[in-house]
Amino acid sequence: MKGSLLYEGKAKKVYHVEGQDQQLILSYKNDATAFNGKKKAEFEGKGRLNNLITSKIFQYLHAQGISSHFIKALNDTEQQVYKTEIIPLEVVIRNIATGSITKRLGIEEKTVFLQPIIELFYKDDSLDDPLINDEHAKLLANVTEYDLDDLKIEALKINSLLKKVFLEAGLTLVDFKLEFGRLPDGSIVLADEISPDTCRLWDTKTGEKMDKDVFRNDIGDLIEVYQTILNRLEEKVCVK
Amino acid sequence: MKGSLLYEGKAKKVYHVEGQDQQLILSYKNDATAFNGKKKAEFEGKGRLNNLITSKIFQYLHAQGISSHFIKALNDTEQQVYKTEIIPLEVVIRNIATGSITKRLGIEEKTVFLQPIIELFYKDDSLDDPLINDEHAKLLANVTEYDLDDLKIEALKINSLLKKVFLEAGLTLVDFKLEFGRLPDGSIVLADEISPDTCRLWDTKTGEKMDKDVFRNDIGDLIEVYQTILNRLEEKVCVK
Ligand SMILES: Nc1ncnc2c1ncn2[C@@H]1O[C@H](COP(=O)(O)OP(=O)(O)O)[C@@H](O)[C@H]1O
Ligand SMILES: Nc1ncnc2c1ncn2[C@@H]1O[C@H](COP(=O)(O)OP(=O)(O)O)[C@@H](O)[C@H]1O
Ligand SMILES: [Mg+2]
Ligand SMILES: [Mg+2]
Repeated sequence: MKGSLLYEGKAKKVYHVEGQDQQLILSYKNDATAFNGKKKAEFEGKGRLNNLITSKIFQYLHAQGISSHFIKALNDTEQQVYKTEIIPLEVVIRNIATGSITKRLGIEEKTVFLQPIIELFYKDDSLDDPLINDEHAKLLANVTEYDLDDLKIEALKINSLLKKVFLEAGLTLVDFKLEFGRLPDGSIVLADEISPDTCRLWDTKTGEKMDKDVFRNDIGDLIEVYQTILNRLEEKVCVK
Repeated sequence: MKGSLLYEGKAKKVYHVEGQDQQLILSYKNDATAFNGKKKAEFEGKGRLNNLITSKIFQYLHAQGISSHFIKALNDTEQQVYKTEIIPLEVVIRNIATGSITKRLGIEEKTVFLQPIIELFYKDDSLDDPLINDEHAKLLANVTEYDLDDLKIEALKINSLLKKVFLEAGLTLVDFKLEFGRLPDGSIVLADEISPDTCRLWDTKTGEKMDKDVFRNDIGDLIEVYQTILNRLEEKVCVK
């Protein structure tokens, strides 16, 4: 049933589904990239972990009323999703300041934002995914003011839900990146993945980094950390 | 009546006014700087030209109902203004794409925007005045959502007025930077300067650059160009 390859990205391969032109199969790769592709490595088992973690999270969000592209996990590394026209924006939600925002704006590391900060980046590797404002987004990403409001409200809802579920798993959700896509009927739904590749998660007790920063900064065993995330979610998160 | 020096910036000195703590004197310097201060030079007569051009423009805007800090020109290089608490934002309005935005977002040089694009930059030399979004502005620049709406509406009004007046002087207003400040009563008014240092102006007939790009790119005689701007404004713009 897996059709031809539609697109190969940095973290996933995207396949058509035979005889089903409204769906896709996302196949999670073992590749890790950072700094817009400037640092690269491969980790045996990473594709499986991100597929299973993303699936778990999308199931949870579905149960909480969040519309998304997710249909089901097919096997260890693949999931079936609704095909969307991806909106070329990385929607970043920050609860605590770390990484690029601290350098860019001179904000102290670990500053807790009174309200989550939303940032839009234009998804374009050749431009290094630049930060943009709403007017740029309307110009470049084929979205209206209304779409942007919609995206942001949805992103904040997802943030509240994820903060809660990660906290139950002993993890503090520091920041994360979302992508949204448009279904054939024009409605906008959550798409892509939510995994330790796209979230910053700190162990709530010890403060340890439990996400792709382990790879970015060479400070631990990526597979061990991602497996811990999956275990904790499986233990704590009830989707039924 | 000129009191002590309050602040020396890249383009102006700011003085207290003796016995008048709600006003300031702005003294325009001959210094030119570009690329956040990395390129520097001095041009005899530049301070005079920017003072006179800014005064002319603020008088015109005043006559058109725009509230600003401007009181009057005192002499060739100095003007008296109301003291404000400057909002640390550079509000940039773009009618035509050129300069940083073309590289940052991959937009073709000379693209005419269907609607003017507003950008906010956080006025902080040590951070190289980074582009920010509205949420950053609320976090860093002590402004509310309401203030930002107010600033943007005012900026668009000013853009319409300036486009018209420059066109009468044979100049196309490509983009420009505004600063706003808060008066003691809390209201926000236009402040700082509007000059060929802070606007991009192209000769409408020949397309020649008639602004600080002459200095940035070493493509002409800055004083000659700024003098032409002043002459054309004096000839065409009636403030009475
Ligand atoms: N439901 C969907 N419909 C269409 N495209 C999707 C969907 N979900 C994710 N994608 C896209 O598939 C690609 C996933 O591969 P990834 O390796 O993350 O790519 P990239 O390196 O471009 O980020 C991304 O371009 C992502 O935007
Ligand atoms: N009405 C005003 N009240 C207080 N400060 C002002 C007013 N108008 C302009 N300024 C400030 O005075 C300084 C002008 O000097 P300038 O050489 O342009 O400085 P800079 O190098 O910081 O841009 C700027 O910091 C500007 O924000
Ligand atoms: Mg991706
Ligand atoms: Mg200045």
